[in-house]
Amino acid sequence: MADNTRNKLTTTIYGREYIIVGVETIDHLRHVARLVDEKMHEIGSQNRSLDNGRLAVLTAVNATHDYLKLEEKYQELEKELARLKGRE
Amino acid sequence: MADNTRNKLTTTIYGREYIIVGVETIDHLRHVARLVDEKMHEIGSQNRSLDNGRLAVLTAVNATHDYLKLEEKYQELEKELARLKGRE
Repeated sequence: MADNTRNKLTTTIYGREYIIVGVETIDHLRHVARLVDEKMHEIGSQNRSLDNGRLAVLTAVNATHDYLKLEEKYQELEKELARLKGRE
Repeated sequence: MADNTRNKLTTTIYGREYIIVGVETIDHLRHVARLVDEKMHEIGSQNRSLDNGRLAVLTAVNATHDYLKLEEKYQELEKELARLKGRE
């Protein structure tokens, strides 16, 4: 049977409280929240005139960009793996 | 010589205008902006009481979560590849 337990974390990101819910461990949820908080502080320190909403959008843009770059690398690795397996 | 040309895209995300700058192609920047816009609309439609700032933070949380999950898969693929190469 699949374990569908949902974990719930109350955490602070950039000075506001959020409840984050997910099937992942509390440690994973905490890790995600900490990364977003750090990235918001990093982008905020470089762009002091940004309001929090715009800052959060640019943080989402940043995270999505990182995701797409990693996805490209992942697909390359998949191709390499398929090549190697084809030779077996 | 490395190509350090920076591209600049003016785009709208969730009704507000942003200038996104990066060394990637304009198509890549546009793709990122579209994904963030779509995700904000998706999360916003499920949580109509959220203000835009909180909505953007949750979008960043979502994207960062996706990144970490893909990173785990990437690392597993790297290990499998190393095993296969070790057998060559």
